[in-house]
Amino acid sequence: MINDKMYALGSKRSSIREIFEYAKARAQEIGVENVFDFSIGNPSVPAPDQVNESIEKIVRETPSVALHGYTSAQGDKSVRDTIAANYSRRFGAAISGDDLYMTCGAAASLTITLHALHENGDEIIVFAPYFAEYKVFIEGAGAKLVVLPSDEKTMLPDFAALEKAVNVRTKGVLINSPNNPSGVVYDEKTMETLCGILAAKSKEFGKRIFLISDEPYRELVYDTKTVVVSPMRYFDDCIVCYSYSKSLSLPGERIGYIAVNPRMENAKEVYAAVCGAGRSLGFVCAPALFQRVAAACDGLTADLSVYKRNRDLLYNALTEYGFTCIYPDGAFYLFVKAAEKDAKAFCAKAKKYELLFVAGDDFGYPGWVRIAYCVRTEQIERALPLFQKLAQEYGL
Amino acid sequence: MINDKMYALGSKRSSIREIFEYAKARAQEIGVENVFDFSIGNPSVPAPDQVNESIEKIVRETPSVALHGYTSAQGDKSVRDTIAANYSRRFGAAISGDDLYMTCGAAASLTITLHALHENGDEIIVFAPYFAEYKVFIEGAGAKLVVLPSDEKTMLPDFAALEKAVNVRTKGVLINSPNNPSGVVYDEKTMETLCGILAAKSKEFGKRIFLISDEPYRELVYDTKTVVVSPMRYFDDCIVCYSYSKSLSLPGERIGYIAVNPRMENAKEVYAAVCGAGRSLGFVCAPALFQRVAAACDGLTADLSVYKRNRDLLYNALTEYGFTCIYPDGAFYLFVKAAEKDAKAFCAKAKKYELLFVAGDDFGYPGWVRIAYCVRTEQIERALPLFQKLAQEYGL
Repeated sequence: MINDKMYALGSKRSSIREIFEYAKARAQEIGVENVFDFSIGNPSVPAPDQVNESIEKIVRETPSVALHGYTSAQGDKSVRDTIAANYSRRFGAAISGDDLYMTCGAAASLTITLHALHENGDEIIVFAPYFAEYKVFIEGAGAKLVVLPSDEKTMLPDFAALEKAVNVRTKGVLINSPNNPSGVVYDEKTMETLCGILAAKSKEFGKRIFLISDEPYRELVYDTKTVVVSPMRYFDDCIVCYSYSKSLSLPGERIGYIAVNPRMENAKEVYAAVCGAGRSLGFVCAPALFQRVAAACDGLTADLSVYKRNRDLLYNALTEYGFTCIYPDGAFYLFVKAAEKDAKAFCAKAKKYELLFVAGDDFGYPGWVRIAYCVRTEQIERALPLFQKLAQEYGL
Repeated sequence: MINDKMYALGSKRSSIREIFEYAKARAQEIGVENVFDFSIGNPSVPAPDQVNESIEKIVRETPSVALHGYTSAQGDKSVRDTIAANYSRRFGAAISGDDLYMTCGAAASLTITLHALHENGDEIIVFAPYFAEYKVFIEGAGAKLVVLPSDEKTMLPDFAALEKAVNVRTKGVLINSPNNPSGVVYDEKTMETLCGILAAKSKEFGKRIFLISDEPYRELVYDTKTVVVSPMRYFDDCIVCYSYSKSLSLPGERIGYIAVNPRMENAKEVYAAVCGAGRSLGFVCAPALFQRVAAACDGLTADLSVYKRNRDLLYNALTEYGFTCIYPDGAFYLFVKAAEKDAKAFCAKAKKYELLFVAGDDFGYPGWVRIAYCVRTEQIERALPLFQKLAQEYGL
């Protein structure tokens, strides 16, 4: 009567969303200040002032019909030109507005890209730990998800596994740096090794293998000395998926883009397939007002010092309490080894202290948990004694 | 290398979008006042003042993190409750916020609904003329589009054809009243006949057949004495797809909803499948600010008197010039019989006069054209002499 897969996806929410909803309900019961919700990547830092200022300015200055009307399906031309010019300047890869396709955020960027590329029998490779919804998006596009391991010390890709796994059905490798959930940032050497393997394998199998770079956390980097450069510099067959959700703290507004590397072969055809996929999935155009806001605020960020402070606070304390943590260079997640084998059991025990976070199982990495520290610093400060009790309960 | 279907959809834009883009380019060449673009349903009437007022009020009064953060996937609870209460009062079908799923506009409402319902081998019935993108959305969800005729005089469904066409593979009938492109509004008798057939056929084949009611033009009704009621009153297995694009003149902002009739069997399961499909397609949540704007402005409309004036002006003049037109009760389209057999040739001839409209072929109705009159009245006044010349060229 209905689609079983869609029912399963809708009735079993993602664990993240499940805990997020639980936290909201629990806050009603015992007060929001007593629930320590580290489940969801919902930025706690306000959008930069320029976001609301530009909303008000655009609303005041633009005639209603021009402001709220359809834009071209790929996005308003001047918006795309502005963002492309910034991109070229900021990340050292020359692109034009005609290489950009504005989307309703990162999820849309990914589903559109995956549908655009998909052919029967395709495989898409990701490295665990990986953002849980990748599985939903990849399988939703009809492709097979292939999960490869990372090194447990560095959380960087296991390249030997990659060399073995790539085959004639490999359509692409989907990477995410800074990484959700590990917080790890790929350095230049990692990118070069990865792209070197893809280039060699592409030649070996006589077919193109795309690098799909999911970059919602691109601006959220705290220590790395390396200047963030475009992955397009490392690899021609690269498609960048971006969202302003995290950099501008507006995940609810659904605004982002896809950038198709103009240096790839048949770039115009790939771009056309992106347009076609957006159309087929029902996106029509990205939200018009926020297209303009994105152009006005492109390159700005929310106050990242809060996340850096949170990271330092949480990483240092949890390490001190005896937890094993991956030191996160970017994003706003701390990846922590569960204090017992079953990460879900560990999460359940934490829940007794009103500490809510997500088991690594859904990120393809059992035995670990993800703690989203994009919360108010005060919330972390008040949670630390509870983390300490949790550590003590485990005798760490 | 890429998906052929997506490439085809992206490289061959919809005729509507094609002409819309041509019109924009042509306006650059000869001035916007000399191009008479009747191609796209982009409202010409400003959004009601309350839209921008509520944007400014919401932005001023809501803390950034709450305002721009993720809402629940199905939409903010208070937004859904408000809209559901209005719906129940306005359209005589009691629904709650938990029956509503907020979407990124009408196209998203449809693709999500179609994916939620889809099982292998499904057929979805539409009546020609039908909105051209239905084909894209239905086939994108994996179903087969079945096109049935309408009566050429009334443009109402051919019910004898429906009785013959429904079979064990029929998953649903997708209707659109007020209709794009014909402007026809289904009266009570039409709805009762349609739903009677669906109920009987559902019984005959021992399976449910859904009525999917696509209602972006619900508020755009000019003459009909009938109070607009919910199709849920006629049929339990009914899903309403709505968008604020036309009623509030904000098609670029992408905001609408799906309402699952709570009186249908397994309504909660169907709703869950809707949630799952939204997730799979990458929608995450509808744009947060505009969810709140929709709740604040639900039930308001742009100044519809402009469309009524446009309709009267255009219908009366074109009829007088000798064109055969369907009298449109609603929406903002005039459906006109082409003055030669090939509607595309007719459009090409009109283009010489800078009159731009869309051939009925893409609406499954060759030999007719759609003229979108959601333009400034002055534009119609200035176009009328050109329409008259066109009529004269054909010796009407």
